[in-house]
Amino acid sequence: MAKENSGWLDKADSPEKLKSIPQEQLPLLANELRQYILKTVACNGGHLASNLGVVELTVALHYAFDLKKDKIIWDVSHQSYAHKILTGRKEFFSSLRKFDGCCGFQSPLESEYDPCFAGHAGAAISTCLGISAANIANNRDGLAIAVVGDGSLNCGLSLEGLNNAASCGKKLVIILNDNRMSISGNVGAMASYLHRVITARHYSGVKNRIKKFIDKLPGHRTMLRYIRKIEGLTKFALLPGAVFEELGIRYLGPVDGHDIPALLRTFEHIRTSDERPVIIHVKTKKGYGYTPAQNDPESFHGVSSFDLDSGSLKPASHNNFSYAFGYSALELVEKSNDVVAISAAMISPTGLANLKRSFPDRVFDVGIAEGHAVTFAGGLATAGMRPIVAIYATFIQRALDNVFHDVCLGDLPVIFCLDRAGLVEDGPTHNGIYDLSFFRSMPNLIIIQPASENELRQMLFFAYNQRHPVVIRYPRGGSGMAFDQSEETPIVLGKAEIVSQNNSDIAIWASGAELWRALEINRILQEKFQLSAEIVNARFIKPLDHALMLKHAAEKQFIFTIEDHSIVGGLGSAAAEVLAEANGKLHSFGWPDHFIPHGKPDILRRQFGLTADAIAEKIAAIVRQ
Amino acid sequence: MAKENSGWLDKADSPEKLKSIPQEQLPLLANELRQYILKTVACNGGHLASNLGVVELTVALHYAFDLKKDKIIWDVSHQSYAHKILTGRKEFFSSLRKFDGCCGFQSPLESEYDPCFAGHAGAAISTCLGISAANIANNRDGLAIAVVGDGSLNCGLSLEGLNNAASCGKKLVIILNDNRMSISGNVGAMASYLHRVITARHYSGVKNRIKKFIDKLPGHRTMLRYIRKIEGLTKFALLPGAVFEELGIRYLGPVDGHDIPALLRTFEHIRTSDERPVIIHVKTKKGYGYTPAQNDPESFHGVSSFDLDSGSLKPASHNNFSYAFGYSALELVEKSNDVVAISAAMISPTGLANLKRSFPDRVFDVGIAEGHAVTFAGGLATAGMRPIVAIYATFIQRALDNVFHDVCLGDLPVIFCLDRAGLVEDGPTHNGIYDLSFFRSMPNLIIIQPASENELRQMLFFAYNQRHPVVIRYPRGGSGMAFDQSEETPIVLGKAEIVSQNNSDIAIWASGAELWRALEINRILQEKFQLSAEIVNARFIKPLDHALMLKHAAEKQFIFTIEDHSIVGGLGSAAAEVLAEANGKLHSFGWPDHFIPHGKPDILRRQFGLTADAIAEKIAAIVRQ
Repeated sequence: MAKENSGWLDKADSPEKLKSIPQEQLPLLANELRQYILKTVACNGGHLASNLGVVELTVALHYAFDLKKDKIIWDVSHQSYAHKILTGRKEFFSSLRKFDGCCGFQSPLESEYDPCFAGHAGAAISTCLGISAANIANNRDGLAIAVVGDGSLNCGLSLEGLNNAASCGKKLVIILNDNRMSISGNVGAMASYLHRVITARHYSGVKNRIKKFIDKLPGHRTMLRYIRKIEGLTKFALLPGAVFEELGIRYLGPVDGHDIPALLRTFEHIRTSDERPVIIHVKTKKGYGYTPAQNDPESFHGVSSFDLDSGSLKPASHNNFSYAFGYSALELVEKSNDVVAISAAMISPTGLANLKRSFPDRVFDVGIAEGHAVTFAGGLATAGMRPIVAIYATFIQRALDNVFHDVCLGDLPVIFCLDRAGLVEDGPTHNGIYDLSFFRSMPNLIIIQPASENELRQMLFFAYNQRHPVVIRYPRGGSGMAFDQSEETPIVLGKAEIVSQNNSDIAIWASGAELWRALEINRILQEKFQLSAEIVNARFIKPLDHALMLKHAAEKQFIFTIEDHSIVGGLGSAAAEVLAEANGKLHSFGWPDHFIPHGKPDILRRQFGLTADAIAEKIAAIVRQ
Repeated sequence: MAKENSGWLDKADSPEKLKSIPQEQLPLLANELRQYILKTVACNGGHLASNLGVVELTVALHYAFDLKKDKIIWDVSHQSYAHKILTGRKEFFSSLRKFDGCCGFQSPLESEYDPCFAGHAGAAISTCLGISAANIANNRDGLAIAVVGDGSLNCGLSLEGLNNAASCGKKLVIILNDNRMSISGNVGAMASYLHRVITARHYSGVKNRIKKFIDKLPGHRTMLRYIRKIEGLTKFALLPGAVFEELGIRYLGPVDGHDIPALLRTFEHIRTSDERPVIIHVKTKKGYGYTPAQNDPESFHGVSSFDLDSGSLKPASHNNFSYAFGYSALELVEKSNDVVAISAAMISPTGLANLKRSFPDRVFDVGIAEGHAVTFAGGLATAGMRPIVAIYATFIQRALDNVFHDVCLGDLPVIFCLDRAGLVEDGPTHNGIYDLSFFRSMPNLIIIQPASENELRQMLFFAYNQRHPVVIRYPRGGSGMAFDQSEETPIVLGKAEIVSQNNSDIAIWASGAELWRALEINRILQEKFQLSAEIVNARFIKPLDHALMLKHAAEKQFIFTIEDHSIVGGLGSAAAEVLAEANGKLHSFGWPDHFIPHGKPDILRRQFGLTADAIAEKIAAIVRQ
């Protein structure tokens, strides 16, 4: 680990200035860049292993391409730190992940060199194809460069992009950043394929065997001319990247992603040829250049602040929702033969690592493929299993139609455990504050939210006893309460829990861990304002406890809702729907909250009382009441 | 077209009874089945070409496999008519698509032989993998058979399924039903690949060239031994299904899908071997056996009732939203160089066929890949283009995260035109009545709904003038108004239109074409109940016209909302949110309706007034007002 300061980093504060550095000095620049990233992340926390792995790649990309016209999109963009530092954000980068500071992901609000927001995997190829098509349409000569990890190739969106690349990808360059990790090891056939390609048993293996065989033939010299002909015929199919070539994408590689001269040679070839779309297979090592991260890239994927010299990370806490979920899922698997757990490259962070160790056959990691994870769970449920799908709230957005079409339509008993549901530190790409709005209109679905880790455990067991799909959502971190598996009041379908009864004029409904904030608010109201409130743990977002809400509508003068969710579409909206109707002023006509069968819409309108006549009758009855 | 009645169809009213029919009689059964489907669809309407194409395939599947334990899932399942008729639903099938009659798609409510609901493409492989995994876990020997069209292989979900097949697909059989259509012609590299495979220039071509070359060599007899060795080495990579083999899936085919004995031989091999997962490449012809459909499979994809003998379909009407959209999009493309249109295998039915004919370079059909369609549009917008994405409301659900992450986050000016938004005839898999709930919480998004075709045209031009993402939703069919491009009152951001002013106690807000129903209701109220209402065309679902809603809250005693959407999450909910707050009883605390930046949640709570202290202050102020 070279620690010398070559001074090149300060000079490379824009892509143009970078180009004035002599090529042989670039490894020194890369070293400095790596040290600067290490120092900043050790202090602020952030993504480490992925960023250390692409330092040389970033330097080479910036050096070879012309970023005034060529655009680089980093898929997920948790590996864009070096890119940020080299595009005039070196000083700003010291504020990494702080409020008003440098975002941990690409952001067009920060720099013209970040073409778009990125935080969800798989979008880079499709976005770059859009830029490629626009450049073709406008006769502009800029390239669109998508840097995609091998894990992202599991993602349907990436694969859709690859499938469409041949049609409008003349300006498209895909850098396949293959760190042979796919987050936490080998998942999916595409990963296996890439690894076979890298180990190169394929082409050069076959080639060598043919050569050896020819050498033994009589007249083998004359043969050489012919063998070239055979080779010409077979080469295409034997090439290591045949799968990409079959999709109409030129394949180059593999290239060592830490060898700057090799990268530059390849990129120069790409820049000046027009063999595009092209995919360049680059081998990198996660955590490269920092031994602790290189030895344990999974732990060093995302870190909070840590000690740079020792490389020791803070031990994981057990008082949080993820741990409680993993613990309780393990209990459930031990008790019930039909329970399996599924995640999409989030086994460890959702708390399932223990369960996977104890029951490897009962846990499926499908890689970054949320849609498949959910539809696969639907299939398992169709065949009598009881799947638990553990996915972050922000990523379940990628499987919305799968929840709808492959689970809710069939009223299948799949349990969705949405971790990180609420505001997180990472910003708008990762905030899990829209799921209620997305899910609340889905028929058959039950949506619950635990206030504490113990309640999460009870809710998971409650969900297992339902014969319907259930969403359980909870925020990152812990509620502050101890997780000791003690039992709270039983969970009853559609029933809220009055936590602090009070006959004042005020009710406060809180969902999930916001309950503790509501209790704190009540304390402040009492101490500072001599007011007090009845505090309700909503528990059910769907079905909301209508009876209690209506009781409060009648008895209380003020009802407040508090939730860790967008103000649109969550608990507040559910309450508004009930209260507006109770108030007698608003009456809404629309399709009822269960699946509507097939048939002529006119017949269905008659069936559900939504013809003009039927609605007029109802309006007259309401008005004349 | 054999018209004789062999009587086998009546005998084949269950999978067991089918098996008692002598194999050589199966083509007669297939003929009868085809005639029965033709007769029913000519009368009731429905999917025709796809169903005619799989008659022999269905007979062979039912004959070869044991449907008591093996499950067949038809991807999309608009080709499951023969399957339904052969599983005891022959009589019921005569009620095809009628209310309380036979559903046009697989439905577990109808039969144990329909394992799940299906209507959206791409789900079959993942669902079958789930069933395969469950059968492995429970040591059951049933197979899960996914019948997937070549068009569905464009879909990310199918590709995610293929990528995961090797890991738990020991009980998985994929039938690739390749009709070389992909709905309306060649889209995507996967389709090109499949067609290359079918034309078989690949393996047998190379093989023949090698053989010819060997024949010219001296001592070519001795060579033969050696050439087998070369062949053994190269065969794997040269096999027609190499892409599938590389993904760990055994490939067989291509097989003629109308040759029942050939199909049976292949299926028998699969049933008795354990080389799985396996993909069987079956070539079929859409519309097979009915000349008009075979000659024009696109027009005969989905039909209303038609004349069986002449094969003449009803001419398409021009008085509908799809036509008006296509017409207006063409106007926009003619006027503005930056406008492009994108669809996902829905060019014709969304009304874009004319535009594609006139400006082929300005229209992109990405195949059944809604996610890619939207992210691709985001990329185009990033590069300064103004994309219009035309997708059915039910299918935009498949691209929700793409709308969120790749368009709304960057506030990119992409226009989404959601056709079929509202209840349709096809049933729950196709009803477009959830989109408002899914979209209403997305920051930066504008959501509008035209009451008429003329208003749709104005709204499209309005959307083009916005610098934000816009959703325009409209139902299948027409409003009943003429489309003559005349201008209504101008569209103003966030402003509803009072259509029928009235100083009574009652206001009725309608969205979209429900406006005409509201006017009809008003007429009934007047004539029958001597009541009258002020009628509002909401126009904007987001931002809702708060000012007018609050005015009505103050002035009117009753407000009614009418919408072609689920009662949860749409116009009614938007109104409830405004009214509950105006009423003074309900106050909701949650994250505001714009994107929240990164930073510690505690800091962001302070920033947005969501700490316990800040909320307590606000509550006290409200209560003491």
